[in-house]
Amino acid sequence: MENGTDKVAEEEDIVNPWEVQSSSSKGVDYDKLIKRFGSSKVDQDLIDRIERITMKTGRKVHHFIKRGLFFSHREMNKILDLYEQGKPFYLYTGRGPSSQAMHLGHLIPFIMTRYLQEAFDVPVVVQLTDDEKFLWKSLTLEECYNLAKENTKDIIACGFDPDKTFIFSDLDYIGSCKEFYWNMKRVEKCVTFNQARGIFGFSDTDCIGKISFPAIQAVPSFSTSFPHIFNGRKDIPCLIPCAIDQDPYFRMTRDVAPRLKLMKPALLHSVFFPALQGAQTKMSASEPTSSIFLTDTANQIKNKINRYAFSGGRDTVEEHREKGGDCEVDVSFQFLKFFMEDDERLEQIRQDYSSGKMLTGELKKELISVLQPLVAKHQEARAKATAEVVEKFMSIRKMPCSDKYPPPVPGASSKKKKKKQKVDSVDDVAKNVEEKLHCGKVET
Amino acid sequence: MENGTDKVAEEEDIVNPWEVQSSSSKGVDYDKLIKRFGSSKVDQDLIDRIERITMKTGRKVHHFIKRGLFFSHREMNKILDLYEQGKPFYLYTGRGPSSQAMHLGHLIPFIMTRYLQEAFDVPVVVQLTDDEKFLWKSLTLEECYNLAKENTKDIIACGFDPDKTFIFSDLDYIGSCKEFYWNMKRVEKCVTFNQARGIFGFSDTDCIGKISFPAIQAVPSFSTSFPHIFNGRKDIPCLIPCAIDQDPYFRMTRDVAPRLKLMKPALLHSVFFPALQGAQTKMSASEPTSSIFLTDTANQIKNKINRYAFSGGRDTVEEHREKGGDCEVDVSFQFLKFFMEDDERLEQIRQDYSSGKMLTGELKKELISVLQPLVAKHQEARAKATAEVVEKFMSIRKMPCSDKYPPPVPGASSKKKKKKQKVDSVDDVAKNVEEKLHCGKVET
Repeated sequence: MENGTDKVAEEEDIVNPWEVQSSSSKGVDYDKLIKRFGSSKVDQDLIDRIERITMKTGRKVHHFIKRGLFFSHREMNKILDLYEQGKPFYLYTGRGPSSQAMHLGHLIPFIMTRYLQEAFDVPVVVQLTDDEKFLWKSLTLEECYNLAKENTKDIIACGFDPDKTFIFSDLDYIGSCKEFYWNMKRVEKCVTFNQARGIFGFSDTDCIGKISFPAIQAVPSFSTSFPHIFNGRKDIPCLIPCAIDQDPYFRMTRDVAPRLKLMKPALLHSVFFPALQGAQTKMSASEPTSSIFLTDTANQIKNKINRYAFSGGRDTVEEHREKGGDCEVDVSFQFLKFFMEDDERLEQIRQDYSSGKMLTGELKKELISVLQPLVAKHQEARAKATAEVVEKFMSIRKMPCSDKYPPPVPGASSKKKKKKQKVDSVDDVAKNVEEKLHCGKVET
Repeated sequence: MENGTDKVAEEEDIVNPWEVQSSSSKGVDYDKLIKRFGSSKVDQDLIDRIERITMKTGRKVHHFIKRGLFFSHREMNKILDLYEQGKPFYLYTGRGPSSQAMHLGHLIPFIMTRYLQEAFDVPVVVQLTDDEKFLWKSLTLEECYNLAKENTKDIIACGFDPDKTFIFSDLDYIGSCKEFYWNMKRVEKCVTFNQARGIFGFSDTDCIGKISFPAIQAVPSFSTSFPHIFNGRKDIPCLIPCAIDQDPYFRMTRDVAPRLKLMKPALLHSVFFPALQGAQTKMSASEPTSSIFLTDTANQIKNKINRYAFSGGRDTVEEHREKGGDCEVDVSFQFLKFFMEDDERLEQIRQDYSSGKMLTGELKKELISVLQPLVAKHQEARAKATAEVVEKFMSIRKMPCSDKYPPPVPGASSKKKKKKQKVDSVDDVAKNVEEKLHCGKVET
């Protein structure tokens, strides 16, 4: 395994799919995390490269990337290589539907994924791990499945293209797609209990469903898991935008892929979205004051920010004017980094708040004026996601984009093909891509 | 768990789904096994009761039961209670398709199941655990799936009723039936790694697929796993005829069922079919001389028996005539117990061989004359199981018998029903059955 164990010294941050804990008021130390996880920093070169590419279709690089909110990656450069060569890839992200109450932080991977879908014109698959939530929470299967459908509305509201987006519930899709189940078994055969315990921290008292679950989150990384989209093609790599706590799943997936002669997923990792009370505390769906929910009214948003958003300001106005506020720990400023698109205005606010020119109340007012319309717009878009729209996004269907992936020709070797046609066939391209992206390089 | 651990003292027989080992030339001590597993002996009372019931439709009790070859059970009496009350049940058995070469021993559960199907006029489900074989053996998924289809021909050749029999491959059915997958998750949530290790002896180096597999073998015990047959009914119990090494799966299932408000399966356990070399050795598909294969020619059968069948005879004819042979260890006699239907003739042979009147060569000749036509008949029946016939048995389909199980009325309480009709509704019967078969009685 890449980075075999996540056992950390006591002073280190705890980051895994079920727990994120930091001892610092600034939150998790992300530079340390990159080293520990063995991923790569999204540096200025990569940001510039993304912008060069997306500017060809008139899109600036997304501010999530430019501002370091998606700060880490694995093989993002290879995905860009492929794109520049006109070769296909797809996007995969997901959500564990444990609650109907989604908050702002839950939107981050979907906003990023939606941006990438538009910028690169690629298909998206969204996995709703309702089976995971059943195994981990005190919920029935029916409840988890219904939550998956409810959450789908919020995902659709992010603006995904219905002609290029497949949203699926595990409880629905696994019992409907043999290829997905076959890939699950292939992954399950490659991972021992010891390895799963090392990566995910399972204990002997965990149920057997939890122990084999990681295979289910791994499998959407492989294009063969979606025969209705990719027509059985093995050679279409995927890029996974997700919060960095999900990385253990994909370290495992990247370890297993070459052994299955399948392609390693590339990754783009985000930081964690802070709770209103500060980066040290955890947002919780059961604690309504810990975050802004997508169902909050304009008034609720205003009150929550004014009452609960942790301030980086000083104790008195005088002191604040003199010494200035601390944007690094101020939650309102952190929220603005996510949701204020105007770079210049954000920088002005940073300077004014840091210098003491801007007071906490004024900063909060700025945030409120950004979030109120943003949440209202989301609610409007969500209201349009009727049962029929949800049905469309979740149905197992051919998509217009599927034509781009002609099925592999069985038994056709690339040598034979070369004799017949001089132009690179899709299969040749595929082979080339495959060689590039994985084979033989088992990282340890 | 019933009988939580199978750790045995060194002198005890080893019996689990992957290993059967005995230190005695007579094979496993089955009386001890009944005590260790906590099952019940198939005693004369039960045999008489089965005969009383089956004689109503003109069938004698099967000689497998009469001769103690199906020697142990769990709640077989409750299944007979239900049958006598005109209430439904179904049969479930299975096979792990690890090899195309099925031998005589593999037929035992299917012959029994086929007999019970006919005697009680009930549906049968047959699970082919091709996914299990993939996880345990060095085979590809495609190979395991093909073996499942090949083995299906041998199963069909046992004479199952196509209108009442559903044969399914896990690799096929799980990706086609949500209800089955949902039940898998329900079972997976109830069993910890600790428990699975206790029951099945898993180690930390076993892959995560093996660790969660027991849920897959458990699930066909529940009628909701087959909505196309039982229309969503939860209240139809099953009886599982199988070799006793499969009992650990169903001890686990019986432990879990009440917690899921599902019915515990009843069981009917067979002894192990001996290898030609004796009950102490193991039959192996890779060792062609260890058993009679269903593909063997008349000549191969004759030669194998004459050359390899372990004899209970004496070293010289004189000694044999004087002291007689030992039927308990003689493999030819043991085989006859399985396959010679004529009770009187079998008893005569036992007496003659034990007294020394019959020599080993003569005993073997008797066996050859039974097995040659039996295997030839099987081959003939198997040849008729064409791809289309296989397709029919394996297709997910309504069956004529499905009409016997009207779907549960959602939200209808039995109180309301009673007001409307005085005769017991099917739902009332169902409720009654359910109360009888499981609830509350978690065995520990």
